[in-house]
Amino acid sequence: MARIAVVAGDGIGPEVVAQALKVLDAVLPGVEATQYDLGAARYHRTGEVLPDSVLTELAGHDAILLGAVGDPTVPPGVLERGLLLKLRFAFDQYVNLRPSRLWPGVPGPLATVKPGEVDLVVVREGTEGLYAGAGGSLHRDTPAEVATEESLNTRHGVERVIRDAFARAGRRERRKVTLVHKTNVLTHAGSLWARAFAAVAAEHPDVATEYQHVDAAAMFLVTQPQRYDVVVTDNLFGDILTDIAAAVTGGIGLAASGCINPTGAYPSMFEPVHGSAPDIAGKGVADPVAAVLSAALLLDQLGHADAAARVTGAVAAELAARTPGVALRTDEVGDRLAAQAVA
Amino acid sequence: MARIAVVAGDGIGPEVVAQALKVLDAVLPGVEATQYDLGAARYHRTGEVLPDSVLTELAGHDAILLGAVGDPTVPPGVLERGLLLKLRFAFDQYVNLRPSRLWPGVPGPLATVKPGEVDLVVVREGTEGLYAGAGGSLHRDTPAEVATEESLNTRHGVERVIRDAFARAGRRERRKVTLVHKTNVLTHAGSLWARAFAAVAAEHPDVATEYQHVDAAAMFLVTQPQRYDVVVTDNLFGDILTDIAAAVTGGIGLAASGCINPTGAYPSMFEPVHGSAPDIAGKGVADPVAAVLSAALLLDQLGHADAAARVTGAVAAELAARTPGVALRTDEVGDRLAAQAVA
Ligand SMILES: CC(C)[C@H](C(=O)O)[C@@H](O)C(=O)O
Ligand SMILES: CC(C)[C@H](C(=O)O)[C@@H](O)C(=O)O
Repeated sequence: MARIAVVAGDGIGPEVVAQALKVLDAVLPGVEATQYDLGAARYHRTGEVLPDSVLTELAGHDAILLGAVGDPTVPPGVLERGLLLKLRFAFDQYVNLRPSRLWPGVPGPLATVKPGEVDLVVVREGTEGLYAGAGGSLHRDTPAEVATEESLNTRHGVERVIRDAFARAGRRERRKVTLVHKTNVLTHAGSLWARAFAAVAAEHPDVATEYQHVDAAAMFLVTQPQRYDVVVTDNLFGDILTDIAAAVTGGIGLAASGCINPTGAYPSMFEPVHGSAPDIAGKGVADPVAAVLSAALLLDQLGHADAAARVTGAVAAELAARTPGVALRTDEVGDRLAAQAVA
Repeated sequence: MARIAVVAGDGIGPEVVAQALKVLDAVLPGVEATQYDLGAARYHRTGEVLPDSVLTELAGHDAILLGAVGDPTVPPGVLERGLLLKLRFAFDQYVNLRPSRLWPGVPGPLATVKPGEVDLVVVREGTEGLYAGAGGSLHRDTPAEVATEESLNTRHGVERVIRDAFARAGRRERRKVTLVHKTNVLTHAGSLWARAFAAVAAEHPDVATEYQHVDAAAMFLVTQPQRYDVVVTDNLFGDILTDIAAAVTGGIGLAASGCINPTGAYPSMFEPVHGSAPDIAGKGVADPVAAVLSAALLLDQLGHADAAARVTGAVAAELAARTPGVALRTDEVGDRLAAQAVA
């Protein structure tokens, strides 16, 4: 039986995670969920971000389901570096998976795109690049201050995530992978990415490929998001592009993500892309769909593709039945999704 | 009299630059334009990208007007690093200015935004960050390859571009500056930017300020571009965000830019954001509006604010009179704009 570590976190995190667990339990009865108290609340109470003992306990689970962590009073970087990125790096979650679909029933911002037309997935590298934490500064707080941030890229790290992207594309209908980088300016890292991409592409003659600079991709995600199938890219580019992809498909309120270690050596982590949304926390009005879709990614990763498809289908039905602008109740949505997923 | 160096370049570059010069000449009779042959064509013919002698000659002008350089057969980085970035760095063009307006008459991709509602300018840092060219690689073409790219940021470089952004905001109606960075991950550079921003903001109590992470800004540029007035940001973030801003205001086909050295110690350079578009080159159908708007930025920088306003007004009239989908003739548009600008 699947053993899930749950980090409900702050703000609306606990509210939406409760619905995701409700749905998980419906499609996979007996799933074992253990709650871990991490995030802004714990940090304020105890000063702790991620004690080693907790990291060790988390490592013993099949997967982690996270709600949202943070509030505006925590200094920038504390929870990001100390908790979220710490987990991605400690558990070698090198595939940061972010699907974007324009679901029927969801009003997207683009006049030019019809529901159902956008169905892409960004495979964002999760353990390298500018997220390596290799930076520093000199002469801080003087006119001579200099600050650096270093993007570290290895053939090992780049090739494995590109392989994952091609494997995913091979299982999809359009079988296309777009590499996004900035090879004309970041010539060293760009060349490494381009050569690794070409090598893996040569092993997959059945998958179509293209390359785009990150600025062009950002533009085309707005003007022609339909053109993308699988996008593979660097950690920071992926951070930006996935938020654009979310924006053109109805907002980060609906976006799910997985930080995946495909080897299974460590647990993968699944979380809605939205934050803790302190302004609406505790009111029972947060949309749990992104958390529930994250649970579907979790199911898929643990080998329960059927259950994942049932959850995704329930979400599709829920969204198609919604009237834009009508307020929702978090727990009612959860109830409907759980019922629909086993109907 | 203004002495302009003209780098018409490749593809549609010469066609659109000819119209920009036509308009410049109409509003500022006697402007002296000297053509320089640089770009893909010269590179293919002679192997030269930017001879030192040409760099010295360019330095003797009041401004540079560039069309577009490049074609698909030049290896990535050659013209970018050797020509475009070379000029930005050699001439210390630390303000990379990119205005975006949704002009009445231009069909934007967003269902939620009305013409006239978007009027923002991105002040992108132009001489630092990941564009510094500080990268390298080891064990190339082996499984042990590692490649780095280093973002270099100085208080000097960051503060001066932030000052420029606040000065511009002070001359605009809404007087608001948004700093965009990624302080929660790029903690060293992010902190430098945030502290320099706070220091300059304290000197401008009349200018409203806000901060956004780059991923959030990318999203809000799609969902609420109306909210921005002046955006100041890092070189690479600016590269990406300005293409999004262009996309939501009708495409890079209409986007102008200036690489500005506000001290006047070296010439500033003005260019349309679109590329050389080899597919339509030589057909006389390229839209010269972005080149003409770049000429307006040039006029403004050289102190001819009135002439700049007349050119911008002519563009507004031209765009308002267009029927979307109807083909245009490059030279006819140039004729109309030149006539309208002096009407
Ligand atoms: C919170 C932050 C560290 C994180 C990131 O930059 O990866 C977030 O933006 C995301 O996309 O998951
Ligand atoms: C061509 C390239 C070097 C350049 C950049 O990245 O700055 C371009 O994308 C731009 O935005 O002017």
